[in-house]
Amino acid sequence: MTLDIITETYNRIKPYITYTPILKSSVLDKMFDCSLLFKCENFQKVGAFKARGAVNAVLTTPKELYQKGFITHSSGNHGAALAYAATIVNSKATIVMPSNAPKTKIESVNRYGASIVFCEPTLQSREETMVSIQKESGATIIPPYNHDEVILGQSTCAFEILNEVNNIDVLLAPIGGGGLMSGTAIATSIISPRTTIIGAEPLNACDAFDSLQKGTIQPPKTTTTIADGLRTSLGDKTFPILQKHLQEIRLVKEESIIEAMKLIMSILKIVIEPSAAVTIGALIEDSSFIKNKKVAVIICGGNVDLTSLPF
Amino acid sequence: MTLDIITETYNRIKPYITYTPILKSSVLDKMFDCSLLFKCENFQKVGAFKARGAVNAVLTTPKELYQKGFITHSSGNHGAALAYAATIVNSKATIVMPSNAPKTKIESVNRYGASIVFCEPTLQSREETMVSIQKESGATIIPPYNHDEVILGQSTCAFEILNEVNNIDVLLAPIGGGGLMSGTAIATSIISPRTTIIGAEPLNACDAFDSLQKGTIQPPKTTTTIADGLRTSLGDKTFPILQKHLQEIRLVKEESIIEAMKLIMSILKIVIEPSAAVTIGALIEDSSFIKNKKVAVIICGGNVDLTSLPF
Repeated sequence: MTLDIITETYNRIKPYITYTPILKSSVLDKMFDCSLLFKCENFQKVGAFKARGAVNAVLTTPKELYQKGFITHSSGNHGAALAYAATIVNSKATIVMPSNAPKTKIESVNRYGASIVFCEPTLQSREETMVSIQKESGATIIPPYNHDEVILGQSTCAFEILNEVNNIDVLLAPIGGGGLMSGTAIATSIISPRTTIIGAEPLNACDAFDSLQKGTIQPPKTTTTIADGLRTSLGDKTFPILQKHLQEIRLVKEESIIEAMKLIMSILKIVIEPSAAVTIGALIEDSSFIKNKKVAVIICGGNVDLTSLPF
Repeated sequence: MTLDIITETYNRIKPYITYTPILKSSVLDKMFDCSLLFKCENFQKVGAFKARGAVNAVLTTPKELYQKGFITHSSGNHGAALAYAATIVNSKATIVMPSNAPKTKIESVNRYGASIVFCEPTLQSREETMVSIQKESGATIIPPYNHDEVILGQSTCAFEILNEVNNIDVLLAPIGGGGLMSGTAIATSIISPRTTIIGAEPLNACDAFDSLQKGTIQPPKTTTTIADGLRTSLGDKTFPILQKHLQEIRLVKEESIIEAMKLIMSILKIVIEPSAAVTIGALIEDSSFIKNKKVAVIICGGNVDLTSLPF
């Protein structure tokens, strides 16, 4: 992986993604005794960083495959991201969604004109349904994170941060399947090797923490976290990247995630989803590790049902 | 009023205010068939444009008066703005607040270390309490909008917009006491005279509309609007400015304000207060007047109790 490859990726997807702003808050800086930079991927296309990876994966797919469309299974932001990415090349996406997927996520996929196929809410049903449709249509499968071009796409978020701001001491991001964190780690290790990369994960879905401890990919023991985007396991592409680059994973209690969500929405005035609150939840529990430091935090997404906020 | 005076004002307050970003959304552009630019003053210091006016008023007050402090009465964002502005010059603010002021506003004033004096929730009690304290302390009174330096401070919001983006066809802002709208009108008429300035006001507090119709300042007939920042009357400084520059005021129903609030929070992923939703509420009711146009919308503030959203 080189800076050239990341730059090339960035230039490829740039016309189709939003250059998201970095927000600051003197109130939060005072509260956590550090200098915080919030990279607002909740303002990204489809309301989450996922647009970066999906757009890159679609644009690097051979053109002759566009007419057969794209397919994935997703209960969350990756589905909407692929739906959006397919429209860019005038192709079509099919998103296999569990029948219990949140209404806001279904609306989001619909907004970009993708076909939705509902299935039973099990991983087995999701995969079987997807494979069976794919066999008929010949659509290109774009998985949510365990895919080189998806990871490269996600690396452009840290690329933007590190090109805009110098001397960042710590970069904080949440970990689900590890796509965002892998891309972040790759870009940061090349552009700003002095920056420490720290992950945050719900205590109730701490499979990445367990995997790094045990040295092999562990499934989550429980997935009873409100942070619905972080319930997935690592993949064989993301795991070794995290093993190599990640300094530490902070585990965060559910009540801290909810408190963080309220804090960020109240003080920063941005709408964030629970998965995006896990990093700040980690600071609420213990911010000593960032004292007096310059800390960039990736706010990964903002797709949340505002009629049932958890606070 | 000249460009030099606005530029001088801007340079004076610049170190103490946030250069707020402009957000865009292709979903909203498609919905309203135009190109929308959202100037996010909800990200401003104290969560509202009011910081601009209060900071300018404090910085243009003779230095020898700083030690006697500043005073105002406010149930809303101006109180927090003056509290913040006073800290800049190491002075102290006293904010007279009605006993029924929302908790979030009280917290916000407290955050900047101002003294709060509670009074009966009537305009008479607010003014009497303020005058009586002022007589003792000799503090400088900074009114919320009917004040030249406050209006000049508010003009820097449009100044930022018009220096960042060219060829804006329409500039939309809400009207309460008319401070933001007066500042906006002054800056726009000088920097971009081709831009049409349009106001939005709740139907349930349509005193500015009535005032322009009748040619004299009218008090609001009712103030039963959810847009708590827009319940005030115009003043003798803001009224003639609006008379001269304002093309039109759109009146907006309560249900449209609430729908707009939900729409902006869901799609733009920013937290806005009801007063900031009135402009978008106007577009929900009728967007034909901005069809195919480039429209800047000032999102005036984001101070809202997230535990009791109206949708």
